[in-house]
Parts: sequence; structure tokens; C-alpha cells
Amino acid sequence: MNNLYALIMAGGGGTRLWPLSRSAHPKQMLKLFGERTMFQVAVDRLLPLLPPARILVVTAADQVRKLAAQYPELPRGNFIAEPLGRGTAPCIGLAAMVLQQRDPNAVMAVVTADHYIGRPDIFRDVLSAAQQVAEQGYLVTLGIAPRFAATGYGYIRRGALLGRVNGFDYYQVERFTEKPDAATAEAFLQEGVYAWNSGMFIWRVDRILEEIRRWMPTMNATLEALAAAWGTPAYAETLSRLWPALRKETIDYGIMEKATQVAVVPVDMEWSDVGAWASVMELHPHDAAGNVLLGDVINIDGANTMVFSQGERLVVTIGVEDLIIVDTPDTVMIARRDQSERVREVVEQLKATHREDRL
Amino acid sequence: MNNLYALIMAGGGGTRLWPLSRSAHPKQMLKLFGERTMFQVAVDRLLPLLPPARILVVTAADQVRKLAAQYPELPRGNFIAEPLGRGTAPCIGLAAMVLQQRDPNAVMAVVTADHYIGRPDIFRDVLSAAQQVAEQGYLVTLGIAPRFAATGYGYIRRGALLGRVNGFDYYQVERFTEKPDAATAEAFLQEGVYAWNSGMFIWRVDRILEEIRRWMPTMNATLEALAAAWGTPAYAETLSRLWPALRKETIDYGIMEKATQVAVVPVDMEWSDVGAWASVMELHPHDAAGNVLLGDVINIDGANTMVFSQGERLVVTIGVEDLIIVDTPDTVMIARRDQSERVREVVEQLKATHREDRL
Repeated sequence: MNNLYALIMAGGGGTRLWPLSRSAHPKQMLKLFGERTMFQVAVDRLLPLLPPARILVVTAADQVRKLAAQYPELPRGNFIAEPLGRGTAPCIGLAAMVLQQRDPNAVMAVVTADHYIGRPDIFRDVLSAAQQVAEQGYLVTLGIAPRFAATGYGYIRRGALLGRVNGFDYYQVERFTEKPDAATAEAFLQEGVYAWNSGMFIWRVDRILEEIRRWMPTMNATLEALAAAWGTPAYAETLSRLWPALRKETIDYGIMEKATQVAVVPVDMEWSDVGAWASVMELHPHDAAGNVLLGDVINIDGANTMVFSQGERLVVTIGVEDLIIVDTPDTVMIARRDQSERVREVVEQLKATHREDRL
Repeated sequence: MNNLYALIMAGGGGTRLWPLSRSAHPKQMLKLFGERTMFQVAVDRLLPLLPPARILVVTAADQVRKLAAQYPELPRGNFIAEPLGRGTAPCIGLAAMVLQQRDPNAVMAVVTADHYIGRPDIFRDVLSAAQQVAEQGYLVTLGIAPRFAATGYGYIRRGALLGRVNGFDYYQVERFTEKPDAATAEAFLQEGVYAWNSGMFIWRVDRILEEIRRWMPTMNATLEALAAAWGTPAYAETLSRLWPALRKETIDYGIMEKATQVAVVPVDMEWSDVGAWASVMELHPHDAAGNVLLGDVINIDGANTMVFSQGERLVVTIGVEDLIIVDTPDTVMIARRDQSERVREVVEQLKATHREDRL
């Protein structure tokens, strides 16, 4: 296992958990489940497999300092800063090149910083299994066993069973699909051969770089120039000169859909992308009345309600039902539980009215 | 009219509008309807009748400074401080003695500082009419024409019609009753001869003092000692020595129920005691969806909901209905609209857990 490395994708700036998540304080920096931030948890769950020295982090340039402060054990040289978001492909490619310089035999696990994994033990088991599949040359993607007909995820259709490692079956990937409509999602669920696309991958760095050279030669040339400058005084200048010119590309559709030898390992590890406040609520234990009450809360006869408060403020609920209440120092949101994803509309409104102080 | 004086009762420390009202910031100091506090509005609506010099204010000792600051035009010597709440009788009695010293022919209107009056023009008209009734020697009480079978108010049953002044009928008072149960309140409403007890009175000071001497001789002796010291250096010492020993007595049940020559003037002046947040909501204009949105609010498809926010904070509602949301710097309350009076339970809980910072 000592050729296994991880790349934590921590560049998100999502607004789906507004008003807690803000542009300067995105989801991976939040303490959604207990006292550790999502990013800290993402590192924590890798540590039984990997020392900090083998964990790389890619994030937005303006987030490096904050994330590094959240995990001082990670070498500062393991942070890859994106001056601008250019999709997942360039940062994964650059990380692969950096790792190849360190260890030509490196196997690289690309994992996320802002997802919930209820069973980190299974997560580590599946990474270990996937590593063995990757050693054979496969580009491996982790597929999440679907629990319902979600329309918010991409799907992976599996083909032939390729084998079984450490209790995990792995399959040829037949097709990646975009987020489906409700009827299609239902059909996928019924068919039993689809998994949710988790955005987590495992591969040998030589294999992914081979595919990048083949399918994204222009980007590859830029990344090679950056990798050559990595660790030298010229890097910063090279980065700011070359990065903005990159085209936005995602690794899943840019590479995975085209590459050969792509495998999926389906896994059930209580995964969630925590894509809305309703998910945060779902993932916390409920009291007898179905409430999730986090923070300084006085609740009088409320039911099926979440209060999420982390500050000095007191939140009082009286007789309310099916609400999600999120209190932050400058903003409080009260949403019907089944409409929490509509914070997007609020964010749009704030942008339109130039209220950057709340974004 | 130049023998008419007003006594504004501004001593309340109510918690029914918690979390906005606090022990150090009671209802009369709140801006519930626009930019003026309830106390300022209570003075404003008297001014067309009376100069500030003829307006007295009784309040808790620790509120004098704040109330005086809210209305600098009122002479500081017109504030009567209660070291401890001892009911309405002692402060009304003391004020009557102070007024009698100034003007033996004074007629005194006792009015409230924390009630809403939608028609201040009618309020002034009824005060003028009531003054004429009071000049005849009657103790006059203003009765509010009941709009529904309220269980939260005392009632006044009227007897014989005594006369008509300036368009207002006045009646002998047959009986004062305590807050009724729902069935009794309904019966009162049907009978058509009951009015809500507003707690507002008009009388000649000599007449009320005559009744106090008769029905409360012990209290009267104390008040005479205080009145003798009023305006002298000995007053403060006299007050702190004598006041705590007073028994709690209310003027309505302590005097009005026993006195002879008591009249009621029924009036409809869009009065409300603003006894709960639901009343505050009712008294504000609603938008097309039934919402009252006060402060910095973004509302996405909410209905029949009030947001009351006066600070720097943003309140966002998404898809909610029938809520009352009150945001203050240290606390936010979200209550079902029909349960807003249950803030009392919250206040009890805060007392029980010694959270004086929120009381």
C-alpha cells in the first residue's frame, strides 16, 4: 500500500448550504456533523490508510491558507492551488504529474472533501480493493449503490463482471450518464445495474496521464509545463500565466467516458453529497418528535424540524413543523423542509442585488 | 380644558412580546408600529389636548432615565418612579395627590403607554367627553366596544344610561368582572351590554382621593406622607422607606368596584392591548399573500407570515406559512401564528434555567 496516494478535491465554492456556506467559507470548511470540518473529516478518514505526507489537496488559491490551518499535519507543499476553477480535469492531471515525479508507481485515489460517508471503514476497504483493481491498469470509479431514484446525481451503468477483490465486485463500465429526469432515474433504479457517480476515482498515475495525453493533448502540454516548474521559484509565474488559458474540463466526462479499461466498484458506505439542508437534517439523529436541534435551542412542541445554529444566538421554536432553520451571525433562514434547495433562488437574488456581504 | 392632566402608566415589564421585550426593555419602549416607541406614541396622541407640562408618567425607577430620554420635552419632575411594583392603586393615588397640590380642580386621565389605538382622534374626543362626565363627580372608565369574545380582558357591565356628551353615551357601571372563560365571554358578547375594561380612567383628583381615603385608609396615609415630601430633599428617603411596605392594590378592583358614582363611556377607537405577537401582526398591513415583512427580509413564496426584524440581520423565508418570526440581536423566535402567546412558556423556562441574559 505504500504507493497509494490521495488527492482530496477541496475546491468547491457551492452555495447549496447557504447561509452557512459562503464564497469565503465553502462547504468543506463547515462543521456540519460535530466538531470537525468536512475537510478535517475527509483527511481523518484517510489516515488509517495513508500518512499525511501522501495526501495532496487541490483547492482554490484563496482557500489554501484556511484549509492548511485546519490540518497543520499536512505538508504545505501538498496543497495545489487553483487560481481559477477550470473543472476537475486540469487539477487532477497536475496532481498526477506531481505524484509521478515523486513515485512513478503511484496509485492515486481522488476523493472529495465535502461529502458525507457514514461508514469510513467501508470507504477504506473499498479504496484498498480499488487499488488492487487499479494496479491492473483499470481506471476505477466508485459507484454508490443507489438508495432512491435521485435526479441530482450522474449515474454509471455497469457491464460485465470483471472480478472480485476483498469482497468487492468490480465491473466494466458500460456508460456514464448525466443527471436523469425522474422517470429515467426510476427506470435506472429498477434495472439494478446503475450506480450513482460519486466523483471518486482510483488509478495508477501513469494510466490516467496516458489517457490525458490521448484525449486532452492541449491541456496536457500546459500541465507538463506546470509540472516541470513545480517546486521551483518559477512555478507561481508559470501558473498565473498558463492556468487562466485552460479550458474547463471535467475528468468524468472528459476522460472516463472515452477511456478504455474503465471499471466501477459499487459500494454502500452511507454516502451522501450533502447537497441541501434537507440532507444535513437526514444525516443527523432525530429526537422522538423527529427534530434535529443543534445549538442553543428551546423547542416548544415542534416536530420534524431542524435547527442548525452554531453561534451565540438562541433559537426558539414554538409549535412549528417540517421546517429547516439555519441561524448564522448575520442571517437566519427558515425554510419548509421540502424546499430547502430553494436557497439557490435566494443566492441568485442576493447576486442580482449586489449583496456580496451575504454571499 | 386647562384643568385636564394625564397620567401615563408606563411601568409594565411584560414578557408577552419576548424576545423583543425584555425586563430592561419592556413593551412601552419598543417600536412596534413604525419609528416611534409605544411610549412616544402614547405622549404624541395626548399632545393635541395637553401640553407636556400637564403629562405625568409613572414608571419603574430603573426605567425613568430611558423613558425621559425618549421624550425630552416632558419635564423630569413629571416622572413618578416606583421603586417596586405595588399595583396601580398607589401610583395613581400618589399622582392624584401631586396633581391636587398643583391644581385642586385637576381632572386626571389615567392612560396606558403600551396599548395600540388606531384612531387617536376618537381617543381625544372620548377623553374630552369623559372629562365633562368627570366634572360632574363621576369616576369614569373607558369601555372598549368588544369585537369578539375575548378571554384575555376584564369586562364592564353597564347599567342605566346616564346621558350623552359630544356624541358619547355614558352609563352607570353595574359590575366589573374578571377575565371570563370562553363561554362566559361569548354570553357577554351576545348580551350587548358589556365592554372590555381598557384600564383607562378619568376623574377629578378630589373624587378619586375621597374614594382612596374611604377604601384604602392605610395606603392613603402612606401616600399623604409621600405627597408631603414630594419635591423636597426628603422625598427619596421617604419613598425608599415607605413604598416597599405598601400592599399591592389595583385601582380597578380596589376602588372602582366599591365606589359609588362610577360611569363607563363605551368607545370604538381601534384599541388593542397588543398582548401577543399575533396582535402585532394583525395590526400591520398585509401583502397580497397575507404576509407582514418588517426589516431586511427575503421571502420566497411565504404566506400569512410575519417577520419582525429591526437589526442588521437578514431574515430569509422559503415556502413557509402561518409563522411569526421575531429576530433580535441575540435571539430568534419562530412560532406558529396561533401559538405566539406561548412565549410565556419560553420565558418561564429561561427563568427556571437562570438565563437572565435573555430575560
